[in-house]
Amino acid sequence: MTPPTAPADAASPRPGFTPADEAFVQDFATMSAFGATPAGGVDRQAASPDDVRQRRWLAGVLEARGLRVVYDRIGNQFGLLERVPGAPYVLIGSHMDSQPTAGRFDGAYGVLAAAHAVFRLAEEWERSGGVPRFNLAVVNWFNEEGSRFVPSMMGSSVFTGKLPLEQALATRDRDGVSVREALEPTGFLGDGAGPAAAFCAEIHIEQGRGLENAGIAIGLVTSSWAANKYTFIVNGDQAHSGATVMADRKDALLGASLLVVAAREVADRFPGVLHTSVGQLDVYPNSPVVVASRVSLLLDLRSPDEAVLEEADALLHRRITEIEESARVTVERHHSHSWGITPYQPDGVELARRCARRLGLSHTDVMTVAGHDSINMKDLVPTVMLFVPSSEGVSHNELEFTTDADMVAGLRLLTEVVRSLANGELDG
Amino acid sequence: MTPPTAPADAASPRPGFTPADEAFVQDFATMSAFGATPAGGVDRQAASPDDVRQRRWLAGVLEARGLRVVYDRIGNQFGLLERVPGAPYVLIGSHMDSQPTAGRFDGAYGVLAAAHAVFRLAEEWERSGGVPRFNLAVVNWFNEEGSRFVPSMMGSSVFTGKLPLEQALATRDRDGVSVREALEPTGFLGDGAGPAAAFCAEIHIEQGRGLENAGIAIGLVTSSWAANKYTFIVNGDQAHSGATVMADRKDALLGASLLVVAAREVADRFPGVLHTSVGQLDVYPNSPVVVASRVSLLLDLRSPDEAVLEEADALLHRRITEIEESARVTVERHHSHSWGITPYQPDGVELARRCARRLGLSHTDVMTVAGHDSINMKDLVPTVMLFVPSSEGVSHNELEFTTDADMVAGLRLLTEVVRSLANGELDG
Repeated sequence: MTPPTAPADAASPRPGFTPADEAFVQDFATMSAFGATPAGGVDRQAASPDDVRQRRWLAGVLEARGLRVVYDRIGNQFGLLERVPGAPYVLIGSHMDSQPTAGRFDGAYGVLAAAHAVFRLAEEWERSGGVPRFNLAVVNWFNEEGSRFVPSMMGSSVFTGKLPLEQALATRDRDGVSVREALEPTGFLGDGAGPAAAFCAEIHIEQGRGLENAGIAIGLVTSSWAANKYTFIVNGDQAHSGATVMADRKDALLGASLLVVAAREVADRFPGVLHTSVGQLDVYPNSPVVVASRVSLLLDLRSPDEAVLEEADALLHRRITEIEESARVTVERHHSHSWGITPYQPDGVELARRCARRLGLSHTDVMTVAGHDSINMKDLVPTVMLFVPSSEGVSHNELEFTTDADMVAGLRLLTEVVRSLANGELDG
Repeated sequence: MTPPTAPADAASPRPGFTPADEAFVQDFATMSAFGATPAGGVDRQAASPDDVRQRRWLAGVLEARGLRVVYDRIGNQFGLLERVPGAPYVLIGSHMDSQPTAGRFDGAYGVLAAAHAVFRLAEEWERSGGVPRFNLAVVNWFNEEGSRFVPSMMGSSVFTGKLPLEQALATRDRDGVSVREALEPTGFLGDGAGPAAAFCAEIHIEQGRGLENAGIAIGLVTSSWAANKYTFIVNGDQAHSGATVMADRKDALLGASLLVVAAREVADRFPGVLHTSVGQLDVYPNSPVVVASRVSLLLDLRSPDEAVLEEADALLHRRITEIEESARVTVERHHSHSWGITPYQPDGVELARRCARRLGLSHTDVMTVAGHDSINMKDLVPTVMLFVPSSEGVSHNELEFTTDADMVAGLRLLTEVVRSLANGELDG
């Protein structure tokens, strides 16, 4: 991977970059300092001090360009450009919160690109006197990552009515702090429902190798993979880890470990079309000399093929029955979340394709494996989702990287897409 | 398992019980209320509020019977009965701290039995004018369990010079609180090295099924099992748990799970003579959508046969090499703790055998798998270790149970053993 290039200043842009492009790259560097880690990543979990400081900075950047900053009841942050009094908005954005020890690009790129797209269009309309059909809103969704407060995509889930507001506000982190308690002192807890949306657009890094390997600048996201997300509780029986004879043990951690291994074996049966993971696993009582009585874990199965997902689900559950017997544990399944292959509106994909052609940007259709706020938004309004390349597909890692040139190409396409949406190109 | 019998009061003892036996059973019930859990167990981790309240209660019980209560530099609690000014002490006791959601008997029984044995002998000498050769000290060792502050057996390790005092005081729990910070406000941090020990005795529940299955009242502990305790760190690479293709992942949790399973497979190769466990396992960053980059875990191998332990260690390490390759992780081994089969002094075992015969109590030689403070003490002074039966071998579990009759039989034997030690029966 190449290191990030030091940006030139806006007054003397690098070849192929406009002053506005350099301004974007400079803002990106400033933004990446919030919660920066020594290894070049960021740590900005939702409503953490660094997330809060960064949101204040973003508010300042938006207000300096004449946008009005407002917050809704779940702390989503909006920067409003109202050119058509009373008209609904094209919502453009992503999220600035991050996983612990995460990369600089995931989410944050999309929010800053949205802001700069709106700045560009605002300037253009200012200069030309042009009046779009829809207003524009930059959005920084609250708690997309879900590492501190489960579930992920919390802000967009409340905005789109998929998650009850009170349930979201009452969600607690591991220290017992609720979303409401975390947000209240920050001033980010508004009382409205946010701007009325007519369309939505989001740009994000790919978090995979597809675009980079193919040498393509832009991914046009046509749909999301299907996914099953399970919470499993493995129940055993507390015992002395030394004295208790092995045959008497009901070791919940052994059962959980067999389940982690089984999930990988299921994935190995479907190479390339089944992703699986256990990222979170908690042991009780988690003491060196106590056989664990309870282990909870979150396990995902994801596939671009719903039939594969169904078969994998059946295989996994057969293995669970075997594990219950061999490890003398019981496994409770809490089926927390599940979705099929859900398409983005084909009209939106075609609009983005026309925009990419106009700009001469190479592009291809892709599916998204990861969840994004736009997956929620597309069920509310027509939504366009764009990807730019991720170096080596590295993501949720401090070494996540996308070149300045790729970020700028994405920003240009996003600007073009938002212009088209604002002008009503999808509105009949 | 039979439920605990409601004790009669001391004035009208149950058949076979003396008023002093009933007084012990009543004190045991009172003691078990500290940190009591709804399921009938206790939760009294070292220096927790309930551990502190219980130690204050014990101090009151000891002082009410004329013992002088003192604390050493690591918070070990002593109740001194000085009948021979200047003579060293027979130290009798165990620990009152517990695992989270533990049983009422582990450790606490041994401290209370020690106190009542000393009360009985003090009364006897008071009545008879008898003068022993050694003084008596009840001891409640600090942090035997090691669930909050690692390592276990901390108080006796410092007392016996095996663990540097400053290292113990600087040990921090998961919330960053040091032993010194936890103990200082309690008043349990003394400045001396505690009483000079000449002999030691400890009584404890067996934490296994051997005595109960054989219908034997007393275990005479001849030695401890050999053990290797390892800390392993499994290193992978953070990645997006959905988007990253499976072949690119270096999943530390998969590697750790394979290691947990491998340890059990090694144990299955040596039925009955190899115990193994992973009780503690911590995942980083432990987020639902991040492939873990680092998992730390504590793994034990224990055996009554040093050759088996050596072979198991070699097998485990061969498996680790295979896991590193198959899961694309690296495993760092921190060899934290290791001991061979270490005998208690045979003279002490024979003394206890004579005492059991005198009292007509059935008895047998046993080894201890679990660690006990007496394992430390036997390297300093001749030490006698006794077991009473554990119902179904259940331990480190709220359902841990020993009958009143078994507890009282153990108390009687302990009293007899301490009388013999105090009278110099082992001193030439």
